[in-house]
Amino acid sequence: MRIIEQKGEYSYVFSRYTEPVARVQPGEEVVLKTEDAYCGLLTSENDDLEEVRNKRRGPNPQTGPIYIEGAKRGDTLKVHIINIEAGRDWAVSNIHKFFGGLTPNKFTRMINVGLSDKIYIYRLDKEGMFRHDDYLRFPWKPFMGTIATAPDLEAVSTLTPFENGGNMDCPDVKPGNIVYLPVSVDGAYFFTGDCHAVQGEGELCGTALEISAKVTLRFELIKGKEITWPRIESADEYMCVGSARPMEDAARIAYAELIEWMTGFGWDRLDAYQALTQAGKLYCANMVDTNYSMVAKVSKSLAER
Amino acid sequence: MRIIEQKGEYSYVFSRYTEPVARVQPGEEVVLKTEDAYCGLLTSENDDLEEVRNKRRGPNPQTGPIYIEGAKRGDTLKVHIINIEAGRDWAVSNIHKFFGGLTPNKFTRMINVGLSDKIYIYRLDKEGMFRHDDYLRFPWKPFMGTIATAPDLEAVSTLTPFENGGNMDCPDVKPGNIVYLPVSVDGAYFFTGDCHAVQGEGELCGTALEISAKVTLRFELIKGKEITWPRIESADEYMCVGSARPMEDAARIAYAELIEWMTGFGWDRLDAYQALTQAGKLYCANMVDTNYSMVAKVSKSLAER
Amino acid sequence: MRIIEQKGEYSYVFSRYTEPVARVQPGEEVVLKTEDAYCGLLTSENDDLEEVRNKRRGPNPQTGPIYIEGAKRGDTLKVHIINIEAGRDWAVSNIHKFFGGLTPNKFTRMINVGLSDKIYIYRLDKEGMFRHDDYLRFPWKPFMGTIATAPDLEAVSTLTPFENGGNMDCPDVKPGNIVYLPVSVDGAYFFTGDCHAVQGEGELCGTALEISAKVTLRFELIKGKEITWPRIESADEYMCVGSARPMEDAARIAYAELIEWMTGFGWDRLDAYQALTQAGKLYCANMVDTNYSMVAKVSKSLAER
Amino acid sequence: MRIIEQKGEYSYVFSRYTEPVARVQPGEEVVLKTEDAYCGLLTSENDDLEEVRNKRRGPNPQTGPIYIEGAKRGDTLKVHIINIEAGRDWAVSNIHKFFGGLTPNKFTRMINVGLSDKIYIYRLDKEGMFRHDDYLRFPWKPFMGTIATAPDLEAVSTLTPFENGGNMDCPDVKPGNIVYLPVSVDGAYFFTGDCHAVQGEGELCGTALEISAKVTLRFELIKGKEITWPRIESADEYMCVGSARPMEDAARIAYAELIEWMTGFGWDRLDAYQALTQAGKLYCANMVDTNYSMVAKVSKSLAER
Repeated sequence: MRIIEQKGEYSYVFSRYTEPVARVQPGEEVVLKTEDAYCGLLTSENDDLEEVRNKRRGPNPQTGPIYIEGAKRGDTLKVHIINIEAGRDWAVSNIHKFFGGLTPNKFTRMINVGLSDKIYIYRLDKEGMFRHDDYLRFPWKPFMGTIATAPDLEAVSTLTPFENGGNMDCPDVKPGNIVYLPVSVDGAYFFTGDCHAVQGEGELCGTALEISAKVTLRFELIKGKEITWPRIESADEYMCVGSARPMEDAARIAYAELIEWMTGFGWDRLDAYQALTQAGKLYCANMVDTNYSMVAKVSKSLAER
Repeated sequence: MRIIEQKGEYSYVFSRYTEPVARVQPGEEVVLKTEDAYCGLLTSENDDLEEVRNKRRGPNPQTGPIYIEGAKRGDTLKVHIINIEAGRDWAVSNIHKFFGGLTPNKFTRMINVGLSDKIYIYRLDKEGMFRHDDYLRFPWKPFMGTIATAPDLEAVSTLTPFENGGNMDCPDVKPGNIVYLPVSVDGAYFFTGDCHAVQGEGELCGTALEISAKVTLRFELIKGKEITWPRIESADEYMCVGSARPMEDAARIAYAELIEWMTGFGWDRLDAYQALTQAGKLYCANMVDTNYSMVAKVSKSLAER
Repeated sequence: MRIIEQKGEYSYVFSRYTEPVARVQPGEEVVLKTEDAYCGLLTSENDDLEEVRNKRRGPNPQTGPIYIEGAKRGDTLKVHIINIEAGRDWAVSNIHKFFGGLTPNKFTRMINVGLSDKIYIYRLDKEGMFRHDDYLRFPWKPFMGTIATAPDLEAVSTLTPFENGGNMDCPDVKPGNIVYLPVSVDGAYFFTGDCHAVQGEGELCGTALEISAKVTLRFELIKGKEITWPRIESADEYMCVGSARPMEDAARIAYAELIEWMTGFGWDRLDAYQALTQAGKLYCANMVDTNYSMVAKVSKSLAER
Repeated sequence: MRIIEQKGEYSYVFSRYTEPVARVQPGEEVVLKTEDAYCGLLTSENDDLEEVRNKRRGPNPQTGPIYIEGAKRGDTLKVHIINIEAGRDWAVSNIHKFFGGLTPNKFTRMINVGLSDKIYIYRLDKEGMFRHDDYLRFPWKPFMGTIATAPDLEAVSTLTPFENGGNMDCPDVKPGNIVYLPVSVDGAYFFTGDCHAVQGEGELCGTALEISAKVTLRFELIKGKEITWPRIESADEYMCVGSARPMEDAARIAYAELIEWMTGFGWDRLDAYQALTQAGKLYCANMVDTNYSMVAKVSKSLAER
């Protein structure tokens, strides 16, 4: 299988403004090597977090853009996530005093003192768990924190989740599932990276178990089918991801998009609204990034009619 | 078993300002009869929704207040939910043009035209499902939409979820689970009502399958233990519910309270913050009420140490 | 002129659940004596702020309820603010580590360390300025931080601004202006208090120059005229105050209500929307209370047609 | 004086990814010709608004980027606004059913029917007023809706206000005032456009009196002085603009930045926080764009010490 590695610098924006690092045919299975959110620079609990952050050009280095042959603006890109393999036997997380769900940050500005930074290194133990100590010990449930196509004109920070995907930090972007993304530029310009060994809902402190990885994907195109926000399909469920601020707007987008999806199965819009009221699921993927991400779900057995 | 029915008018506020309808000893198992959110007035799909809404003194008629013997301000009330029995063989839901997650409303004010109202009557079918038609058909997964103690000085609308519980519309307030509520006035002044035959996460259109019910409960007091927001315990999980606007503040409260709970098991605060980042769950209970409600969860096996 | 002083305890909720302290006829000019936000307990920069806060039953002690003779649910109460006289020659402000626009607080919960508390005493100097030091020195621009009628069923904390007014902390509630409030219960049950010697827009740190005062008012009733949110009239302008979270909802309410006001002058709704786009004013009254308050304004010369 | 006109297509992003259209020396006074928000395509009240919107590549065509000689990342760009001259004797505004402060929109998604679109053409009358009819008639109070430098890596939509300025729709970006912008890339890459003949606070319906214009500017560099958000200086006041969602975050940024500015005059941070509480101003510039913009102000006489 073809292995795609980033040539030169990783990308710190989702954008059309750099040359593709590879061209892939729909149907071809490829492996992408991705770096972790810290670009591999954070390796010890004694590192100076501020220093490491300043060394990076930005968060979440991306492998990409990957040019999908035949993709045209207005199509939908279907990404089959086949497998995620850990790039190494340890993962890193950290608490930062001005980033995270329960700290002041760039937008929710405060003038008081932040808490201390703290770095956590987790090592793979014999039972296949990532272990920091007896209590901070988590199973391998990998997913890609970032997955996106390029927007039409903008170049979007790899910290941001948005209409074309991006830094959704959504645990359902995982092996076995399919992610649907809008194609806004010819060739789609696909990016991924920021793999997480495991993460809870909300990514509360702002960093999951960050890890380098090998991601196996297969692309497919739905020609002439336009979607406006990312969608996810698992064996049993359809999901839409909304990313916005405040969080209720992210929730509104997620459910409104899911209603749109259901109308494609023949649902009347008001009845789909009623159905999701009684049987929809709605969880928070991230409450820490520049937009918050909410995921609305419905079982296939209810949606299909 | 003692059956408590509301004498006289139902309560439309959570408050200390009315006389208790019953006095209950900790440990006694009691059955409370509750009315549905429409006080039983909405019975046909041909009803005039506006007219019915205007007939009510308010939404979500409450059974209560119930005086819990021995409860003192500063205690915690532990409510064991033993059982919920449907009060009838049908349930009602509706879409309202100025209430719900995807419509303009009292606070998210807009000047455009709302959508049409629509009423849905669901009847219990032979398989025990609540059925409107072949597609809108849902299983019996009952819970109490409202559960509260009285606040100290305020009288809070039964549309509002808040520190003492209230209209959280949280599907985890269900048989088998335990709800913990702050006691802010002597006697606790417990209220419940607004039972739902079933509801998805977010209660998207604003009304679940509304039903009258018989709720079997047992109360317990934790003397001198003060909590500031509602907590829920299931067989496997600890949960905290935050209710606020915008929705991210509800999420912050839920996770911050869960960190507090974990410190009670010996967790360092930063480590609990880290643990919930990797293994917490965070779903939306309601995105339609005067405050939004978010539920943060952690497995007992992780929290206890 | 009749002077109304609070008998017994001050009220810490806006509610119908206590007996009126006075009954006033429409047209009568009365003087209300009000206590400051700290109920007069905070008198020195060396006080222990936490201790003082705990001594109070709540923030913003209210003078009231005052029964307005003839007021019926569905009327509008017109409050002419004639004069505000300082109750003493000093005022107090403070910075609190868990209350204010740039600190974590009860709803925007964080886990980091707060900043230090700090108390500021301002004394009236010879030029009539309130002076803390050479730089913190402000003119006398008094207004009432709280002004409300009782809601229908709720009892609302005196920290909260809402549909019936409340803790709007709006500098336009000042001598010379008229405040219009909904009447939700017979007798209106009017409250005021929390006078400020001066305050900027937003009340950034959470406490203005808090002062006891004598407030001269005259009430008037508009029979059978129902409004849903507070309105203010100055010599030149009409204003509506919206109070909600997030802040954009407060802004939406304020402008939507101002459009309603303009339709009363014969404006088409879309044209009023257009007019306010080009000539409306929109400032923040408070960004610190349990709801945020936004004030939308239009000049009378534009609105009247 | 040198007149700079856009060669080729206007820019629909604030970005470093296109070639500068001109190079300007600090100190040189230049005139920039700008197109209106509709790129001159909306000229009649009978136009089909949807059709016109689809013809544009995006909103708010920008004149730029302009390369400022000597500007280095980490400097501050000082923009003196000398004059704005109308490009024609009419202006256009419109109400759109899915854009604006009181309509559903891309983020605040709803499923109900929107209101009708409506276009307003205003013509300059003999008294120098822009007149639609006897009531919709407004004076010439011009300002630039967009003003920005390029961000480091991102390309930001011209609908968005952000750290480097952008679509703030702030009426204080007007002749006589100075705007300070961060320099994030060498040469600064300055953009402006979207001039408004007049606009109220909030730009309620989403479009002001849109007009083409000639803007006279003079640039200056403050070498080695880094700011993180836009600042404005008038004859009497210092202002900071925060742009974010929800609106309270925009307010937090604006006031937090103003505190930073005041510390440069020798203020202790807590005392500046206190000072702004009593004498700061805080208004809404826009409540319709992809971020909301709030402007915090302080008088120079208070700030300078």
